[in-house]
Amino acid sequence: MKTVAVRNIQRADSNAIGTFASLGVATVHEALGRSGLMRPYMRSIFPGAQISGPAVTVLAQPGDNWMIHVAVELCQKGDVLVVGCTADNSDGMFGELLATGLRARGVKGLVIDAGCRDVKVLKEMDFPVWSKAISAKGTVKSTLGAVNVPVVCAGVNVEPGDAVVADDDGVVIVPKKWCVETAQKAQKRADDEVAKRRRWEAGESSLDMYNMREPLKKAGLVYVDKPEDV
Amino acid sequence: MKTVAVRNIQRADSNAIGTFASLGVATVHEALGRSGLMRPYMRSIFPGAQISGPAVTVLAQPGDNWMIHVAVELCQKGDVLVVGCTADNSDGMFGELLATGLRARGVKGLVIDAGCRDVKVLKEMDFPVWSKAISAKGTVKSTLGAVNVPVVCAGVNVEPGDAVVADDDGVVIVPKKWCVETAQKAQKRADDEVAKRRRWEAGESSLDMYNMREPLKKAGLVYVDKPEDV
Amino acid sequence: MKTVAVRNIQRADSNAIGTFASLGVATVHEALGRSGLMRPYMRSIFPGAQISGPAVTVLAQPGDNWMIHVAVELCQKGDVLVVGCTADNSDGMFGELLATGLRARGVKGLVIDAGCRDVKVLKEMDFPVWSKAISAKGTVKSTLGAVNVPVVCAGVNVEPGDAVVADDDGVVIVPKKWCVETAQKAQKRADDEVAKRRRWEAGESSLDMYNMREPLKKAGLVYVDKPEDV
Amino acid sequence: MKTVAVRNIQRADSNAIGTFASLGVATVHEALGRSGLMRPYMRSIFPGAQISGPAVTVLAQPGDNWMIHVAVELCQKGDVLVVGCTADNSDGMFGELLATGLRARGVKGLVIDAGCRDVKVLKEMDFPVWSKAISAKGTVKSTLGAVNVPVVCAGVNVEPGDAVVADDDGVVIVPKKWCVETAQKAQKRADDEVAKRRRWEAGESSLDMYNMREPLKKAGLVYVDKPEDV
Amino acid sequence: MKTVAVRNIQRADSNAIGTFASLGVATVHEALGRSGLMRPYMRSIFPGAQISGPAVTVLAQPGDNWMIHVAVELCQKGDVLVVGCTADNSDGMFGELLATGLRARGVKGLVIDAGCRDVKVLKEMDFPVWSKAISAKGTVKSTLGAVNVPVVCAGVNVEPGDAVVADDDGVVIVPKKWCVETAQKAQKRADDEVAKRRRWEAGESSLDMYNMREPLKKAGLVYVDKPEDV
Amino acid sequence: MKTVAVRNIQRADSNAIGTFASLGVATVHEALGRSGLMRPYMRSIFPGAQISGPAVTVLAQPGDNWMIHVAVELCQKGDVLVVGCTADNSDGMFGELLATGLRARGVKGLVIDAGCRDVKVLKEMDFPVWSKAISAKGTVKSTLGAVNVPVVCAGVNVEPGDAVVADDDGVVIVPKKWCVETAQKAQKRADDEVAKRRRWEAGESSLDMYNMREPLKKAGLVYVDKPEDV
Repeated sequence: MKTVAVRNIQRADSNAIGTFASLGVATVHEALGRSGLMRPYMRSIFPGAQISGPAVTVLAQPGDNWMIHVAVELCQKGDVLVVGCTADNSDGMFGELLATGLRARGVKGLVIDAGCRDVKVLKEMDFPVWSKAISAKGTVKSTLGAVNVPVVCAGVNVEPGDAVVADDDGVVIVPKKWCVETAQKAQKRADDEVAKRRRWEAGESSLDMYNMREPLKKAGLVYVDKPEDV
Repeated sequence: MKTVAVRNIQRADSNAIGTFASLGVATVHEALGRSGLMRPYMRSIFPGAQISGPAVTVLAQPGDNWMIHVAVELCQKGDVLVVGCTADNSDGMFGELLATGLRARGVKGLVIDAGCRDVKVLKEMDFPVWSKAISAKGTVKSTLGAVNVPVVCAGVNVEPGDAVVADDDGVVIVPKKWCVETAQKAQKRADDEVAKRRRWEAGESSLDMYNMREPLKKAGLVYVDKPEDV
Repeated sequence: MKTVAVRNIQRADSNAIGTFASLGVATVHEALGRSGLMRPYMRSIFPGAQISGPAVTVLAQPGDNWMIHVAVELCQKGDVLVVGCTADNSDGMFGELLATGLRARGVKGLVIDAGCRDVKVLKEMDFPVWSKAISAKGTVKSTLGAVNVPVVCAGVNVEPGDAVVADDDGVVIVPKKWCVETAQKAQKRADDEVAKRRRWEAGESSLDMYNMREPLKKAGLVYVDKPEDV
Repeated sequence: MKTVAVRNIQRADSNAIGTFASLGVATVHEALGRSGLMRPYMRSIFPGAQISGPAVTVLAQPGDNWMIHVAVELCQKGDVLVVGCTADNSDGMFGELLATGLRARGVKGLVIDAGCRDVKVLKEMDFPVWSKAISAKGTVKSTLGAVNVPVVCAGVNVEPGDAVVADDDGVVIVPKKWCVETAQKAQKRADDEVAKRRRWEAGESSLDMYNMREPLKKAGLVYVDKPEDV
Repeated sequence: MKTVAVRNIQRADSNAIGTFASLGVATVHEALGRSGLMRPYMRSIFPGAQISGPAVTVLAQPGDNWMIHVAVELCQKGDVLVVGCTADNSDGMFGELLATGLRARGVKGLVIDAGCRDVKVLKEMDFPVWSKAISAKGTVKSTLGAVNVPVVCAGVNVEPGDAVVADDDGVVIVPKKWCVETAQKAQKRADDEVAKRRRWEAGESSLDMYNMREPLKKAGLVYVDKPEDV
Repeated sequence: MKTVAVRNIQRADSNAIGTFASLGVATVHEALGRSGLMRPYMRSIFPGAQISGPAVTVLAQPGDNWMIHVAVELCQKGDVLVVGCTADNSDGMFGELLATGLRARGVKGLVIDAGCRDVKVLKEMDFPVWSKAISAKGTVKSTLGAVNVPVVCAGVNVEPGDAVVADDDGVVIVPKKWCVETAQKAQKRADDEVAKRRRWEAGESSLDMYNMREPLKKAGLVYVDKPEDV
């Protein structure tokens, strides 16, 4: 690991990010070919938040939030801070003051593969955080990590500037170079669902809507009338 | 495993189900002799829901929601869909569209030993789901399972038609043949608690209310005045 | 283990407890030298509660809540009941009736390294509980434990009368003899943060506020302009 | 739950059981249509054991091994004891003396969804146990459960007399009525693998052996020469 | 937390320790009234070790092994080092060199509520370790903890000098003042089992040996002949 | 995710790999600046194996081992196969036949962030596997992933050709471009330890060896004679 902080990064396409923010995680994740999703232990500290923005990345040592302080001043308006650790950790690396600093710079939220604290105040501030744990455990500032290098966060590799999309369903990362294409696919997917939803509401079976009866039969599904017939 | 879908099942007594819905999980579980409770990792995706209904069961392969689509059209008004998997899985097998389909048929809710997604929309729809995880991870439709066969869900065996009771405390399953008897016991238990609650409110000790002083003494409990006396 | 119940305990300083209740867990935990924090699996059953009080302690056998009944009548106004187990357990050892009994005696809340049930009613009662799990699993009353002896709860040793502080960030225990000193340190810490917060809000970098630029450089942190320079 | 002990049960076909013991878990699980496998947290307390036998089942309350004592005298030569619990539990419900009693009756081993102790002695006795945990935690004998009723063990429903197959890969349950058919399929599968293994040993690609090149192409797999071509 | 190292401690009775070492964890845990057992996630890094000795205790910050270095020179021949952490941690705080240092001082083994590394060499050295995890993750030496103060390790409070007993079944702690009495009870328990074991070997039912038939009947156990009779 | 298989990759320096294989995981991880270590849930299926080799990478969908079949023929003598999944999974994606195929091509071992089966045979073959779980759960071959693209495995990003180092302490990944430098640092570290080990064996305190007495004092460590002095 190089103990380095990179000042300038290329950020994901802002139009794509707007699309991602409006469509949410599940649709974007499908449009990306069902990849890029963080592990489901990453949960929002309060319900209802839905954001997207380019990632400023932090690689931290467990129980040490020094590099988050370094990262704050490298953030721009609209960014999302993403913190990965070199080992499993649930300590409360982030709280009210750091959130205040990020808010002052226009950062949209935090994604951290560790713990978060001061959650009551963060909720009052309406500053969204997706974390592995809530914990008041204090951390030290003694060992270096890195800022704006690739980091693994909750099972996903995040390059600086990649698009982060986060809502109540979790967090998905869209690599910079695939953002425009993915935004288009995601929008198309969302548009297609509008018509489908009406048919679902009308009680039509998805077996008909998606032509699944024939494949089910071919795969060997047998219908019987009563449990005793199994 | 037979890859089969059973069309018609016998459903638990509807009066008993009404009683279960009004009394909730803890009381019904006690009336059933403290059995039938799903593992506590099963949590409601939003607080406050309390339902009961006969189970339509699905046995699914992990990461594959094909059989849920098959199950939808076999559901009736008042049913609760119960999904078990052949292996541990937290993928988002269920979301907004399937919920719309179930709602259209009058289904009361879902219990799934896997993941759920679109939770924000499900909450807006007020469609209750008890799941092991929240995850946007998309699933495939490629391997058969079964519908309306016995399935194990979160540690409990569920037969098609058994009564499902679910609230903020978890999920309990009452076998069809024991529903009427269990509903009576549960109602009696609830009635008995009314008087007891008043005595608790008045500050009476449960050691007196339940005659526990003598058994405690017999079991060897000793009271001392100060920590130093231990 | 002595199967004993201690009637009279020395309780932590009430002024310190008042300070703890107003400042919350994160600040008190830092003032205590970053120790005394329970494991982060201890979570409040509803958000927003923030309490402090002297501990009445219970050592229970898993799946057996007999000693909680014994403990209720040994509680005083303002106390917090703390329950540890001799083995891992998530059964629902505590519910509505016990909460009614504690409320009648003026107890502020419960901290239990096991499960809790009737959470909907507890929320309506506004009776706060920090627990390891929510579970309707019923428990027996057959094996003795102890009341007001030292117990380990979620990784922390709790002596009877120690100060319990609990909020949305978790639970911290302050040993009786360190309460006054810790309250002073915690208050000072909170006071110091007021001024700091304004500087954070104004967008000042914490690297300047806390003089971290020199130590970072000395530790070997290198700034580069672009990812390619790493 | 009926607190009952059933004396006589119908046991799975003994020839099938002989086949299962020789082929092991993975092959039998596949022959059963990839179902019936217990959760992978069930592990053998020492490596190398491979057994099969009809299940004598126990439903126990957590932390209480009374019903295991009841079950011992209902076991016959060749049986495997299977213990499920009404709630998660890792206490040491089983040890040296119970193993001695089972050994005296010719029982082949134990499968328990809880803890086991005296593992050093059990290893010396060569008495195989598959358990969720190893724990010295002692248990009580105070609450009834049942013997030879259906029980869920590590995610699988086990009827009395069903075939248990256990080895270093885990534990699979074959329902009585499917044993003969499953044994035949499993044997055929094992026979087929003999020829296949030689082709694998010779370095032949499985893409050719199983004709997967065409399906892979059809599904959209693209081969490129260098990482830069992706 | 006081950042302090205590040089001289009172050690548990050496005769009792000799008895504990010969009888092992399960027997001692029972003799202690089924308390004092560490959580079952504590596992030996190789099978077969069985030790007892007075505890030298370390309270460490997660990911920081500085205090273990401090503790080494405070150990005496026959001691067991016990390490607790202020937060969950699985980093490899202990390895070959520290083991070499402890071995040089005659220390019998290590019990650590965190990770351990160099396990291959530790096995060759026959230096027993009970740990929460095996992990190569390196640690820092930057934050103080304490030596020979009370620490919570894997759910149990350990006072300096308390007797540690560890084998393949786990780890139990016997408070200094109860060692002599517990050793006597444990020895009696072991002696009583000798005769019992012969009766078990002869196939006698424990229901007769321990007079459980009557209590079972009284508790409501019903025997039936066939599953259909349930 | 591009569904692609890359035929030719650049492999890490073979001399460095030889060094890594001889020194093992803990030393290499330290030389790499304490980064690159997989999560400690990755465990060897049998003790004693210690290997290093360039990574051939597989990105698989959970419960689907199709891409492992594709990867086999892209492996060369000396490689290590590394499998990551798009979601948490413990199914038995790998067994005896795939191991036979890899062995035929000279592959040294497997690292898989999922389950493994046929462990008894794999042990007899002496084919080392580091996995998240042991499970007989069979998998399908229906959804594409990718071969020789960057994958996240157990928390670490692995590029094709990176050096994999694995032993009883876990698995560490060294990026290709840092292999030569890391091998030198690791060798130096190992050489330095030889002299240190002798001093440890002689009973010298590490506080003197590493000059820690002064820093400890400066950090505030206080020595006292007796527990009462704390």
